[in-house]
Amino acid sequence: MASNSFGKIFRITTFGESHGTGIGLIVDGCPSGININVNAIQTDLNRRRPGQSTITTQRKEKDEIKVLSGIFENKTLGTPIALIIYNKDHKSEDYTHIKNIFRPSHADYTYDVKYNIRDYRGGGRSSARETLARVAGGSIAKMFIKQIYKNIKVNAFVSRVANIKINKNIHELDLSKIDDNIIRCPDQNISQLMIELIKKIKKTGDTVGGSITCVIENCPPGIGDPVFDKLHANLGKAMLTINAVHAFEYGSGFDGTYLKGSEHNDIFILNKEKNITTKTNNSGGIQGGITNGENIYFNVGFKPVATIIKSQKSIDNNNNVVDCIGKGRHDPCVLPRAVPIVESMTYLVLADHILLNKTVNIKNF
Amino acid sequence: MASNSFGKIFRITTFGESHGTGIGLIVDGCPSGININVNAIQTDLNRRRPGQSTITTQRKEKDEIKVLSGIFENKTLGTPIALIIYNKDHKSEDYTHIKNIFRPSHADYTYDVKYNIRDYRGGGRSSARETLARVAGGSIAKMFIKQIYKNIKVNAFVSRVANIKINKNIHELDLSKIDDNIIRCPDQNISQLMIELIKKIKKTGDTVGGSITCVIENCPPGIGDPVFDKLHANLGKAMLTINAVHAFEYGSGFDGTYLKGSEHNDIFILNKEKNITTKTNNSGGIQGGITNGENIYFNVGFKPVATIIKSQKSIDNNNNVVDCIGKGRHDPCVLPRAVPIVESMTYLVLADHILLNKTVNIKNF
Amino acid sequence: MASNSFGKIFRITTFGESHGTGIGLIVDGCPSGININVNAIQTDLNRRRPGQSTITTQRKEKDEIKVLSGIFENKTLGTPIALIIYNKDHKSEDYTHIKNIFRPSHADYTYDVKYNIRDYRGGGRSSARETLARVAGGSIAKMFIKQIYKNIKVNAFVSRVANIKINKNIHELDLSKIDDNIIRCPDQNISQLMIELIKKIKKTGDTVGGSITCVIENCPPGIGDPVFDKLHANLGKAMLTINAVHAFEYGSGFDGTYLKGSEHNDIFILNKEKNITTKTNNSGGIQGGITNGENIYFNVGFKPVATIIKSQKSIDNNNNVVDCIGKGRHDPCVLPRAVPIVESMTYLVLADHILLNKTVNIKNF
Amino acid sequence: MASNSFGKIFRITTFGESHGTGIGLIVDGCPSGININVNAIQTDLNRRRPGQSTITTQRKEKDEIKVLSGIFENKTLGTPIALIIYNKDHKSEDYTHIKNIFRPSHADYTYDVKYNIRDYRGGGRSSARETLARVAGGSIAKMFIKQIYKNIKVNAFVSRVANIKINKNIHELDLSKIDDNIIRCPDQNISQLMIELIKKIKKTGDTVGGSITCVIENCPPGIGDPVFDKLHANLGKAMLTINAVHAFEYGSGFDGTYLKGSEHNDIFILNKEKNITTKTNNSGGIQGGITNGENIYFNVGFKPVATIIKSQKSIDNNNNVVDCIGKGRHDPCVLPRAVPIVESMTYLVLADHILLNKTVNIKNF
Repeated sequence: MASNSFGKIFRITTFGESHGTGIGLIVDGCPSGININVNAIQTDLNRRRPGQSTITTQRKEKDEIKVLSGIFENKTLGTPIALIIYNKDHKSEDYTHIKNIFRPSHADYTYDVKYNIRDYRGGGRSSARETLARVAGGSIAKMFIKQIYKNIKVNAFVSRVANIKINKNIHELDLSKIDDNIIRCPDQNISQLMIELIKKIKKTGDTVGGSITCVIENCPPGIGDPVFDKLHANLGKAMLTINAVHAFEYGSGFDGTYLKGSEHNDIFILNKEKNITTKTNNSGGIQGGITNGENIYFNVGFKPVATIIKSQKSIDNNNNVVDCIGKGRHDPCVLPRAVPIVESMTYLVLADHILLNKTVNIKNF
Repeated sequence: MASNSFGKIFRITTFGESHGTGIGLIVDGCPSGININVNAIQTDLNRRRPGQSTITTQRKEKDEIKVLSGIFENKTLGTPIALIIYNKDHKSEDYTHIKNIFRPSHADYTYDVKYNIRDYRGGGRSSARETLARVAGGSIAKMFIKQIYKNIKVNAFVSRVANIKINKNIHELDLSKIDDNIIRCPDQNISQLMIELIKKIKKTGDTVGGSITCVIENCPPGIGDPVFDKLHANLGKAMLTINAVHAFEYGSGFDGTYLKGSEHNDIFILNKEKNITTKTNNSGGIQGGITNGENIYFNVGFKPVATIIKSQKSIDNNNNVVDCIGKGRHDPCVLPRAVPIVESMTYLVLADHILLNKTVNIKNF
Repeated sequence: MASNSFGKIFRITTFGESHGTGIGLIVDGCPSGININVNAIQTDLNRRRPGQSTITTQRKEKDEIKVLSGIFENKTLGTPIALIIYNKDHKSEDYTHIKNIFRPSHADYTYDVKYNIRDYRGGGRSSARETLARVAGGSIAKMFIKQIYKNIKVNAFVSRVANIKINKNIHELDLSKIDDNIIRCPDQNISQLMIELIKKIKKTGDTVGGSITCVIENCPPGIGDPVFDKLHANLGKAMLTINAVHAFEYGSGFDGTYLKGSEHNDIFILNKEKNITTKTNNSGGIQGGITNGENIYFNVGFKPVATIIKSQKSIDNNNNVVDCIGKGRHDPCVLPRAVPIVESMTYLVLADHILLNKTVNIKNF
Repeated sequence: MASNSFGKIFRITTFGESHGTGIGLIVDGCPSGININVNAIQTDLNRRRPGQSTITTQRKEKDEIKVLSGIFENKTLGTPIALIIYNKDHKSEDYTHIKNIFRPSHADYTYDVKYNIRDYRGGGRSSARETLARVAGGSIAKMFIKQIYKNIKVNAFVSRVANIKINKNIHELDLSKIDDNIIRCPDQNISQLMIELIKKIKKTGDTVGGSITCVIENCPPGIGDPVFDKLHANLGKAMLTINAVHAFEYGSGFDGTYLKGSEHNDIFILNKEKNITTKTNNSGGIQGGITNGENIYFNVGFKPVATIIKSQKSIDNNNNVVDCIGKGRHDPCVLPRAVPIVESMTYLVLADHILLNKTVNIKNF
C-alpha cells in the first residue's frame, strides 16, 4: 500500500535516509529454498558503488551488505529477508549550507510542501542512495529467477550519452562486453566517445543525461498479466520510479508510432524447431501485456543530474533569493551506475510476475 | 492485488469481455457526498464511442451507462459504485473465422499460452472495449476531484499522427478547442493534415499511430509520493496499461536527456504574488515524484492499430500457416478515441494520490 | 485496499445496496480452466434464500444469479468473473418510516456519522443481503478447490440456538444430515428443540442468537501463512465480517484456555499408514497458522437479530426520542440461513491460501 | 500482500528469527510531524521483556530498540520508520537437541511441511520474539493517535488465568492499577490468586492459559469500515495473529448470543449533554463495523504455552518416536507479557482505521 513497497507477491519494502543509520529493505514473498550467495549481492552493489571509476563521483562508500534475517545456512527460509547497508562516509556538514535552500530540480521544495519537515542531509530519503536497496532486492530476485529459468539473461547498458549513441541493432551487440568499459556500453568505440564527453562535462562542473537500454533474453512466454498488470506497464513504472528517469519506451517505442500497422505488425512464423515465433519483434516480446517468448527490450531516459558544481540562483524557505552552489562529490553522469539499478528493477518485476503466473491456470495445480 | 484493479484508495476493479454481457467496474474508495451526474459520465463515454466520426470505426455502439450501486439521490454513499455498459452490437460471427488463428500483434497467442482458453469473440478481455470501464471510472474520479479543486484541468489531445505533429509549445495552444475537430488536436491547421492522412490510410485498409499529449493545470503542490509511488511513475504505468501504448515521457522527456544539467534545471523564482514558482518547467510539474504546483505534462506513444483490412500470414493453434484478414469495422487510428481514455486514467491517478495525500501529514488531522 | 474486497490473490470485491439495482461481485484471481456450473451457484444461493422455511423471514426473493463476465463455455477464462443478483422484491415503502430514525443495534447511526448520507431503504449497504455476494463468490471458490483437492469437505451447521446445543463431539455427528432439517443441525433430536424455540420466539416478535460450528475435513498440510496471515486469523476475520457475528474460536477455543499445557498439547504420533498425525486435536488442525492435516474446526457466535417486531425507544437524526417498530418480514434467527455464508467465507479463505501456497516454496517451480 | 505486513495505510512489515541478528520492522505510512520519544518505545518493550518478574521466563534479554530511519530531530519524516532490536542472549545450543524433532503443538512440523527448511533455533520465525516488532510498531501507532485524540485510552489486562477470573464489570475496575501487580490484573485480590496459581504451575514444569480483556475508551464515532474492514473484524484478526491466541469475542461476545434481541439491543438515548449514547453497550462500541462512541471492549483467549518442562513423546523428521523435553527458560503463562502485545495490535488497528477514515467523506477535504 504505502509508497515504499514494490511488488505484490515478491515484494520489497525499503527504508533509509542518505545520512541516517543505513539503507535497507525487507524482501517478503521470496520462496523458500533459494540458494543465496551473499557475495553475489555485494558484487551487484559494487557495480552501483560510487568511486568505482574516474567518471563517477569520487565519494568512497563501501556499501557493505549485511543480512538481518530470512537466510539460514545459505538458503532462503521463506520468511522475510531483511538486508541493510550501513551508512559510513557521512559528510553531513557538506549539506548544512543548503539546509534551508530549495536546490533547483531536486525534491527539497516538494518534500517540504508535502511533509513540512525534511532530512536535508544528502537529500534524505530522496537521495539516490535509496537505490542501494533496489539493487540488493534485485539481487535476491535474480537468484530466485535463475534457479527456475537458468537461461534468462537481463542485460542493461548505456546506449546513449547526450547525443552520442550506439548505432547498431541490439542483436549486433556483444552484451557480454558491457562491463569492459567504465561507461558500460557494449560498443567499445562509442563507449570511448561517451567517456570523453563525460570527462569534458565534469571539468566544467556540469552534468549530462542519456539513455539505458535493457534486454531480457530467454524469458518464457506467458509472463505478465492483462489489463492493469501488463508486464511492460510494470516495467515502465519500475523504471520511472528510479531517480532522474523521465521517459520509458518498450519494443519499437516512440519510433514505432511513426509506422503503419502493416509495417509494425509482427507476423507469426514457425522456426526451425517448429515453434511459434515472430518475423519481426516490434512488440518487444510482449503482446497484450504478456510475454510471447521473443526478446524483451526497452529504453529508459535519464535527465542530467541536478546537482552541478556551478552557482545557480534559488529560493530559500523564507522566500529569499539565494545562491546555490553544489559542494560535495557528485556524478557528472548517472548512467554507468544506473545500469545495475535498471537490471535490478527488471529482476524484481520479473520475479513478481513469475510468482503470480504460478497461480493463474488450473494446469499448475 | 489481482490485475484488474487500479489504484490503492480510490480503486477501480473492472470486468467484461468484448462480446460478453457487458463491460463494467466497481469504484471502491470514492468518498461519500460527491455529487454525481450520470449524464456527465455518458458524455465522457460518448467521446470514446465508436462511430462518432468518419475517421473512427463505423461500428454503432450506444455504450449506455447503468448505475448498479453506490449512488443515492445523485450523491455517492461511500459504498462501492458499480457501473455497467451492456454490450449491444454483437457481431460475434465476425470472429468465428479467427477462432483458432493468432492474429499478428494481438494478444491471441499470449492469452492462449497463459490461460489455455480464450474468448476469441472480439478479442475477449484484451479488446479495447475494456477501456469503457476506465472512462466511466475516470468520470467519477473527475467529479470527486472537481469538488475539491475546482480549477484543476486535465486536457489530453492528439499531438502527432505518424509524422504530422503540432509544432507549437503547449502554452501557445488553446486547449478549449480540442474538440473542435474530429481528431481532437487543438491546432486547427495541423488537425486537418492529420485527418487527411488518416482518411488516406483508411482507404488502403491500413492503420497509423502517433502521440497524445496530456496537460494538467492548477494541480496543487504536494501530490504524489516518494520512492515507488512517484506521481509520474503512476501516470506512466496508467498510460502503459492502455491498449497500444508503447511509450511514455513526462516533462522534458527524451528530449531533455540530451541537455546538460545547467540547461535542464528549473530555477526557483518568486512570481508576482511572491509565491514560489520555476523559471522553466523541464520537470513537468513533478520533482522527486511530488507535484510542485507547475503544469504537469506528458506524452503517450500509441503504436498503429494491429487490425488491418489486408491479408497477413499467420499461424493457427495447430501450427498451420494461414491467411488472416481483418473483417469487421475497425479504427484506422485510435488516437481521437484514446484522448478521453488518457484523461480518465489521469483523473484516476490523481484521485488516488489526492486521497493518499490526506493521510501523510499530521497537519491534516 | 478498500473495504469491499476480500482476499489477496483469489479476491472478491462486492457491491450493492439492499434496495438498489442488485447485489453483485467481481471474483478476480480465479485460475483459468475451472469448470463452472452456474446451477450449482444457484443451489448455494438457495440455501441462503429468505422464505425457505417456516423459521426464516417470509420475504420472497428469487435471488437469481446472472453471470456478467469471466466464464466462457462453462469454464473460467482467468479474467474477472462478475456476477449479479438483481433485487426484485423491493418494499422500500416498508422503510420510509425509519428514514430518519436510528434503529437500535443497527448500523444506521454509525453510517450517518461516518458518511453523512445513508441509503435507509432496507439498511442499504449494511443489509445482510450483502452476503449474497459472499455466497456466490464462495461457490466459485468451492469449484476451484474441489478441482484440485477432491476430498476437501467444508460443513457448517447450527450447533447452538440460545442455550439449546448439541452435546456430542464433532466426530459423533453425521455431517451429511445437516440439511435434513430446517435449522441445519446434524443432531436430529436437538434440531427439533431448536426449531420449537425459534417458533416460540417468533410468535413474541423477538429474536434469538446462537452458534455455528464449521468443520474442514481433508485439508492438506502446509496451507496458511505465518505471522499476519495465519489461517485461523483469516478465518476469524472472515467470520467476524459477517453481520451479527460477535465471537470466534478455533480448535479448543475458549474452553482450551482453561487447560494446562500438558493437557492441551497435541502429541505427534504415526498412524497406521506411518503418516504423522496427532493423538488429540486441540490445535484445530492449525499450528503456527499453518494446517497440519488434521480436521480444522471453529465456532462462530451470532448475536440475536436486531430487528424485532416490538416497539423500542430510539432517537432520530434531530435528537428526538421516537418509537421504533420493526415492520417488514424479518428472521427470528439468522442461524439456518447463515450456515451457507459461513461455508462460503471458509471456501474463500481456503482458495486464497491455496493459491498463495503455490508461490512459497521453490519445489513448486 | 505478503504475510509479514499488517495494515493498509499505517502498515508494519516485520522480520527476524529468534536467534538471527535481530527482530525488526518497517512502519510505512505514518504521517510526518509526529513527536517520537524513543524512550517511550523502550518502556513499551520493557513491559513485554522476559525476566521482568518471578512469573515470567528468567531469560535476560535487554531488547534495546534502535532507530534505523524515518525519525529526524525526534519527529517522523513521513518516510519509512525502520526499527530493530538486536538479539543478544543467544543460547542456540539449547535447541540443537530439537533440531530434528517436531515439538508438540509448536509450528515445527507445519513449517517443515510448508517450506522444507526451518531455522530450528528458538523456533526461528515462529518464536514469540516476533511480537517485539509488534510492540515497537504499536508504540509508534500510539504516539500518532495520542497526538490527534488525546483522550483515547487503550488498556489491556489479564481478566482470567485458567479458572481464576475477575468477577466485576469493566466499569467497576480501576484500569490505572493494571501494572500494580506482576500479572497485570486490575483486581488486586484476584491478581494474587492468579500469581499463586502460576507459581504453583511453574513448579510442576507445566503451563497455563487464560484471557486478556482490552478496553478502548474515548474513541470517536465513525472509525471502522463496512463489509470486509469492520473494526471488530480487524481487531479480531489482529489478536488471532498473536501466538497462542485461540479465541476472540467483542462486546457481549459468546455470552450475548444466549440473549434475545429485545434484551441485547442497545437503546439509543441522549445523555446529559444531549449527545446520543446508548443505554447498554452489548455492541461493544461498534455497530455495523463502525464505532459509535461508546467504549470498545473485547476478550482474547490464550491457550497454555506449548513448551513444558516435562517429557513428552513426539516424532522426529525421520518418523522416529522420540522423547521431547523442554529445556531453556520458558514462560509458565504468557498472559502478563501478552498484555502490551494486545495493546500494541489494538493501536495498530486503530491507527490504520483513523487514517482510512480521513479519506471516506468529502467533508474532510
